[in-house]
Amino acid sequence: MPRLAAGQARRLLAAARVARLATASPDGVPHLVPVTFALDGDTVYTAVDGKPKAARRLPAGLRRLDNIRRNPAVALLADYYAEDWAALWWARADGTASVIEDPALMAGPARLLAGRYPQYATVGLPGPVIAIRVTQWSGWAAAPGPPGAG
Amino acid sequence: MPRLAAGQARRLLAAARVARLATASPDGVPHLVPVTFALDGDTVYTAVDGKPKAARRLPAGLRRLDNIRRNPAVALLADYYAEDWAALWWARADGTASVIEDPALMAGPARLLAGRYPQYATVGLPGPVIAIRVTQWSGWAAAPGPPGAG
Repeated sequence: MPRLAAGQARRLLAAARVARLATASPDGVPHLVPVTFALDGDTVYTAVDGKPKAARRLPAGLRRLDNIRRNPAVALLADYYAEDWAALWWARADGTASVIEDPALMAGPARLLAGRYPQYATVGLPGPVIAIRVTQWSGWAAAPGPPGAG
Repeated sequence: MPRLAAGQARRLLAAARVARLATASPDGVPHLVPVTFALDGDTVYTAVDGKPKAARRLPAGLRRLDNIRRNPAVALLADYYAEDWAALWWARADGTASVIEDPALMAGPARLLAGRYPQYATVGLPGPVIAIRVTQWSGWAAAPGPPGAG
């Protein structure tokens, strides 16, 4: 410690309700947005967006997709903050992403997302799905032992 | 709405206790870590790390600095998640970063950080400081009106 084993980092990230997705343009300008997500093995699915439909027209949503189409390297982070810094932890998935737009291929990930977030019944099933093939799980916790909150 | 004005995004980010810093290598591999931070006008200061000293030797801390030295483009994000998606918001600062290692130049930012986080009295004043000159404030809120929680 304080480095987390890959399996523990994966478990912490998998249990988080929100994560942040970093993409980058081919010339290295990072872009960062919060996302909802669902895990299937070592693949993370996230949709554009966990928000009302109007948000999909915003540049932020498009930029994420543009970046991934031109540069698949991404990072996804979940973290826990508390004023007691002995409770801090974070977990990260680094990998390569692709954009799924074929409705037939979106159905499975969309089901996973709807299963995790009942809210999708109200806001409607979201647009393109991003699939992240995770190549590295990493994490950190201030204190030894399994982090308890998050 | 739901886009936030720059001033409102700045206020939301400024009030957050934790944010996530995305950097990227020159060839566009993003790197993502949670950070504590303090704001001074349109400059954000963050240190390596809000964690015990041992963490400073970790690759994650170094990679962030390496990335910034070779590619100054960064993004910093604060967000609020709740199961009531009408309460969601995020605020982001995009800008260019530099690494401050001169102790004389670190003193001011270190004071700002210690003023915001009493925890720094215990974990010690942190290592190199990253200064982010913010070129764009942006944000989003699911509901009109000022977001209340976070």
